[in-house]
Amino acid sequence: LAIADFLNDQNISDVANLVYAYEEYEAQIIASLSIHRAASVFKILDLAEQKRIITELPPFKTAELLNELSADDRTDFLEELPSSVVRELIKLLNPEERKTTLSLLGYPENSVGRLMTPDYVWVYEHNTVAESIELIRRFGKDSETIDVIYVIDEDGNLVDDIKIRDIILSSPDKKINELIDGRVIVLHADDDQEVASDVFKMNNRVALPVVSKTEKLLGIVTIDDILWVATEEYSEDMQKIGGTEALDEPYLDTSVWKLFQKRVGWLVILFLGEMLTASVMQYFEEEIAKAVVLALFIPLIISSGGNTGSQASTLIIQALATGDVAITDWWRVFKREILSGLMLGTVLGVVGYFRILVWHSIFPNVYGDHYHLVGLTVGFTLLGIVLWGTLSGSMLPLALKKLGADPAVSSAPFVATLVDVTGLVIYFSVAYLFLQGILL
Amino acid sequence: LAIADFLNDQNISDVANLVYAYEEYEAQIIASLSIHRAASVFKILDLAEQKRIITELPPFKTAELLNELSADDRTDFLEELPSSVVRELIKLLNPEERKTTLSLLGYPENSVGRLMTPDYVWVYEHNTVAESIELIRRFGKDSETIDVIYVIDEDGNLVDDIKIRDIILSSPDKKINELIDGRVIVLHADDDQEVASDVFKMNNRVALPVVSKTEKLLGIVTIDDILWVATEEYSEDMQKIGGTEALDEPYLDTSVWKLFQKRVGWLVILFLGEMLTASVMQYFEEEIAKAVVLALFIPLIISSGGNTGSQASTLIIQALATGDVAITDWWRVFKREILSGLMLGTVLGVVGYFRILVWHSIFPNVYGDHYHLVGLTVGFTLLGIVLWGTLSGSMLPLALKKLGADPAVSSAPFVATLVDVTGLVIYFSVAYLFLQGILL
Ligand SMILES: [Mg+2]
Ligand SMILES: [Mg+2]
Ligand SMILES: [Mg+2]
Ligand SMILES: [Mg+2]
Ligand SMILES: [Mg+2]
Ligand SMILES: [Mg+2]
Ligand SMILES: [Mg+2]
Ligand SMILES: [Mg+2]
Ligand SMILES: [Mg+2]
Ligand SMILES: [Mg+2]
Ligand SMILES: [Mg+2]
Ligand SMILES: [Mg+2]
Ligand SMILES: [Mg+2]
Repeated sequence: LAIADFLNDQNISDVANLVYAYEEYEAQIIASLSIHRAASVFKILDLAEQKRIITELPPFKTAELLNELSADDRTDFLEELPSSVVRELIKLLNPEERKTTLSLLGYPENSVGRLMTPDYVWVYEHNTVAESIELIRRFGKDSETIDVIYVIDEDGNLVDDIKIRDIILSSPDKKINELIDGRVIVLHADDDQEVASDVFKMNNRVALPVVSKTEKLLGIVTIDDILWVATEEYSEDMQKIGGTEALDEPYLDTSVWKLFQKRVGWLVILFLGEMLTASVMQYFEEEIAKAVVLALFIPLIISSGGNTGSQASTLIIQALATGDVAITDWWRVFKREILSGLMLGTVLGVVGYFRILVWHSIFPNVYGDHYHLVGLTVGFTLLGIVLWGTLSGSMLPLALKKLGADPAVSSAPFVATLVDVTGLVIYFSVAYLFLQGILL
Repeated sequence: LAIADFLNDQNISDVANLVYAYEEYEAQIIASLSIHRAASVFKILDLAEQKRIITELPPFKTAELLNELSADDRTDFLEELPSSVVRELIKLLNPEERKTTLSLLGYPENSVGRLMTPDYVWVYEHNTVAESIELIRRFGKDSETIDVIYVIDEDGNLVDDIKIRDIILSSPDKKINELIDGRVIVLHADDDQEVASDVFKMNNRVALPVVSKTEKLLGIVTIDDILWVATEEYSEDMQKIGGTEALDEPYLDTSVWKLFQKRVGWLVILFLGEMLTASVMQYFEEEIAKAVVLALFIPLIISSGGNTGSQASTLIIQALATGDVAITDWWRVFKREILSGLMLGTVLGVVGYFRILVWHSIFPNVYGDHYHLVGLTVGFTLLGIVLWGTLSGSMLPLALKKLGADPAVSSAPFVATLVDVTGLVIYFSVAYLFLQGILL
C-alpha cells in the first residue's frame, strides 16, 4: 500500500519510466495504481509493454483497465492488435463502451474517426451560461476535455463550439446563443489523420468536433492525441524515405526478423533496378576496355547524381508533408530546380575538372596524354548528372503524390537508382562527344 | 466595412488562405480585421508573408499588431528577423510588452524560454475555489489559456498546476490546497524545445509551467505552439538527412540563391569525399584493365552498400528523434544490425550470384570462362558490403549524437559516401581472393 501511495504520487511519465526500468514488475506497477491513473499511464506506454501488461494482469484488472481507458485511447491500442485478440478484449467491455469501440474501429485506419472520443459536453443554444456551467459540472467528469463545449441543435447537428473561457468570463444569465460566433471548424470522420493535424495547427484549438457527412456531431478529437499523430507520421515518413516499410513499433521493440522483412523488400527492388547499371556498363564494355581511365570516375559521377537527387527529393517530400508545396506548384518547383541544378552542377563540374588537372600536374601521366579532354568529359558529365538528379529528385515525389501514392515511399534511394542508371548513359555519351576518335 | 464584417466572420485558417491567394491585398486584409483576430491570423502565416505585411501596414497598425500578438508568438516572429529590424520593431512596443519581449529574446534559440508567455492566471494555495474563479474572471481575458491555473507561494515559487475542470467541478468554498496533488510537471527555460515536445507527449496537459533554476515560475508554454515545434523539428531532420542545411523557411519562399547556398556545402563536402573513390579505382587500375568484367558490377555493388546504409541510418535517426533508442543502447543496436546485415546481405548476395549465372546461360561468354568465380566474387562482396553498410549506417548517427552533434546531419549521404569508398576496397579484396592467378 505504501507502494501504491508512492506510485499514485508520481507523474504519469515517471511511472511510465518505472515500467520501462522494471519490466518484471510492469503488471504489478499498473495494478497498484488507482484505475484512473493506470489508464493514463497505460496510454503513453509503447505497444510492446501494453501488449504484455494486458496479458499479465489478472482478467478482472484487464477488464477494469480497458473500460477505464478513454474511447480514443482504447481504439488507438486495439487497432494495433490482431483481430482475434481484439475480439476477446472487446468482450471484456461493458455494453456501452463496447458499442462505442466497435463504431470507432469501424472507421478506416489512420482516419479522424479512429482518433475521436464521444465523451464531450454539449449544450443547446437556448441554455444560459449558468445552466451550461451546471451541465459541465454534471457531465464534465466523464468528458475527455471541458476546455471546449459544443453547442448543438434539437437534431443533434453541430451549431458551434465555445471555449470554456468564454463561458466562465461571461455573466451567468447570458444565453449561449449570444456567445457563439457561427464560426465553426470541423473535422470529418473519414478524413486522414494528417488533415486533422494541419487543421489543429492552423486554428488555435485544444479540441475539434468531428461531424458526419450530414453535419451530425459524432465526437471530438483532442490536441494531445494530435501530438502523437505528428510523431507517428514523422516516423513513417522518415522510415519510408530511407527505403523501409513503416515499422509501426519502436525500433528496439521490433524483432530482427520483422525488421528484416520490412527492409528486404525495397532493398531487393532497388537491387533489381540497379542491375540495369550492369547492363549499361556491359553495353559500354568496349569503351571501358579502350579507355580504362574513364572507369576511374564512375563511382564519383554516379554518387554525385545520387546525392543531389536525394537532396532534392527530401526537400520536396518535406515541403509536401508540411503543406509548403502542392502538386499544382510543380511548374514553379521545376523552374527553381533547373536553376538550382545548373548552379550546383557548375560548381561540382568545375571542382571535378580542376581535380583532374591538379592530379595531372602532381602525378604526370596518371590520366594519359588526353587528361584535358578527360577533365572536360568528367566536368560536363557532372553538370548534366547533377541537373538530372535535381530534376528527377524533385519531380518524383510530386508524381507519386499525383498518382495517389505516398511521396515519401522510398523516394531518396529510388531517385539514386534512377540517376545511377541514367547517369552512366550520360557519362558515356559525353565521353563520345569529347573523346571519339581519340581514346574511343 | 462589409469586407471587414465578412473577414471577421471567417475562420483564421480561411483568412490565412485569402492572404495567400490575394497577395496584393495581404496588408489590407490584415488591416481590416479586428486587431485580436489580425494577431491570430498573423501568427499562422508563413514568415515571408509576415515580413511583407509588417512593412506594408501603416506604422500605427504595425505597432498595434505587434502589441496585440501574444508574447510567445511575437518572440517566434522576431527571432527570424535580422537584429536591426528587431530593434526598430521593439521600439513600437509599449514599455511592458517591450520588457517581456526583450527578456524572452534573451533565452537561447530553440529553447523553451523562447516559447514561453508570461500571460497566465495564478492563485495562492489559501484561495478558495470561488476566489479563484473570481481571479480567473478578472485576469483570464489577457491570459494565453485558462485551461490550467498555476498555484504559487508567497515567494512566487510554483507549487502546483490545476486544471480548470478541477476548479469548476469543485464546490465554491473548497480551498485550492485541497485540490492540489503536489505532482507538478515543469519545463526549464534553458531546455531545448525538443524536450518540451516530449514532456507534452508524455503528460496529458495543454499547458506546462516554465521555471527558473530556483523554481520561480517564469511563464507557461501552450500545446498549440508545441505542434509548430514538432513540425519545425520534423522539417529540420528531413532536410538534414537529405544533406541540406535547415532552410528555416518554406521551400517556395526560399530564394533559389539561398537554396543553392544551403545545398552546395554538403554536396561539395560529399563530392570531395567521393573523390577518394577515384583514388581507390586508380589503385586498382591494372586489375580493371586485366579484368574489365569486374568494372561492370561496380555501380551495382556500391549502390547496394549505399542503400542499406541509408536504410539503417534513417531508422536509427528516427528512433533517436522519437526517443525509442538512446546512445546507451548502442550495443543492442549493434548486435541487431549485425544480424540484419547478414540476413539482408545473404539475400542480395544470392540474388546477385544467380543474376550472373542466369545471364551467363542466356548470353554465353558475356562474363568469360570464369563467370562462376565472378559470380562468387560479386555475391560475397555484396554480403560484406551490405553488412558494412548496416553497421556504419546504424552506428554513425549514434556516434554523432555521442559527440554532441545532430544525428540527422547529412547522415544518409555521408554513410553512402563512406560505403562507396570502402566498398570498392572490399570488392577488389574479395576479387583477389577468388580470381588471383586466374583473371588477376
Ligand atoms: Mg486522450
Ligand atoms: Mg494510431
Ligand atoms: Mg499507442
Ligand atoms: Mg465558434
Ligand atoms: Mg483525445
Ligand atoms: Mg505520411
Ligand atoms: Mg549511390
Ligand atoms: Mg499562442
Ligand atoms: Mg521558432
Ligand atoms: Mg512563425
Ligand atoms: Mg498537479
Ligand atoms: Mg503559447
Ligand atoms: Mg532536431
